[in-house]
Amino acid sequence: MDEVVKAIQDEYPDDFAWCYGCGRLNEGGHHFRTGWQGEQTITIYNPSPEHLALPGFVYGGLIASLIDCHGTGSAAISLHRKNGHEVGEGAEPPRFVTASLNVEFLKPTPHGVPLKAIGNVEEIHPKKWKVTTEVYANDTLCARGEVVAVVMPSTFANK
Amino acid sequence: MDEVVKAIQDEYPDDFAWCYGCGRLNEGGHHFRTGWQGEQTITIYNPSPEHLALPGFVYGGLIASLIDCHGTGSAAISLHRKNGHEVGEGAEPPRFVTASLNVEFLKPTPHGVPLKAIGNVEEIHPKKWKVTTEVYANDTLCARGEVVAVVMPSTFANK
Repeated sequence: MDEVVKAIQDEYPDDFAWCYGCGRLNEGGHHFRTGWQGEQTITIYNPSPEHLALPGFVYGGLIASLIDCHGTGSAAISLHRKNGHEVGEGAEPPRFVTASLNVEFLKPTPHGVPLKAIGNVEEIHPKKWKVTTEVYANDTLCARGEVVAVVMPSTFANK
Repeated sequence: MDEVVKAIQDEYPDDFAWCYGCGRLNEGGHHFRTGWQGEQTITIYNPSPEHLALPGFVYGGLIASLIDCHGTGSAAISLHRKNGHEVGEGAEPPRFVTASLNVEFLKPTPHGVPLKAIGNVEEIHPKKWKVTTEVYANDTLCARGEVVAVVMPSTFANK
């Protein structure tokens, strides 16, 4: 199976590593990890046995969660690169929050195969990025999503 | 705390009660339950300790999941009523799948209080319903969502 070797989430400071979707310190979470694949971004995830809509199909809320965290991670890794950094250098990456999330469910998503979220990132404004994502199960496009992510306001970090 | 007494998910046939979001038979799932509140629909949920974005705030993917299942449940309970049935009668309700899900995150959602999803349901077509949802933490509107739900195609049930 393909693997994301260098993921932006690996370098978030500990204080920001508790996200249920993509925080490496959240034991019960999904541990989504987002890296580069050429000029696109990629997150790979194996749904757990309980992540069902119906037996045999993946839960839509999990797909939405994947698109959400893949979106903020893709925005973060892109701004990190724009700032002159690559994952693995040890520089602290920017952190984003989701302003809006749109998901179109195109086909029932089969359970039991890895899901790949492939993202294209566009800068709308230095603090506002749009990530368009396609979710594949094997080679079948099952869902399409769009996330508008904004640089995390300081009000979050102060809590 | 408020409670949904009669929920549409309580009456889904066993084969359709495995959804990670709203299936009563999915042990590890969220067990979202959707009922009437006047002419609106309501789903109440207490996020678990691990459902964090950052410490103190609820994970956006969970909010998206809540809006998703609240949407399909609201469509189902509405079509059930249109078909002349109320929850609790024992008639088998219709089942919906999500065609599209849109979420706007308006404010950071505080963790530690029950979330209430309140829905308004509109019939677009006998097999296609739109549910507009507001998610409140205490009295604060934190997110707004829209689900287009369609009557479950028979291809799902055959698997």
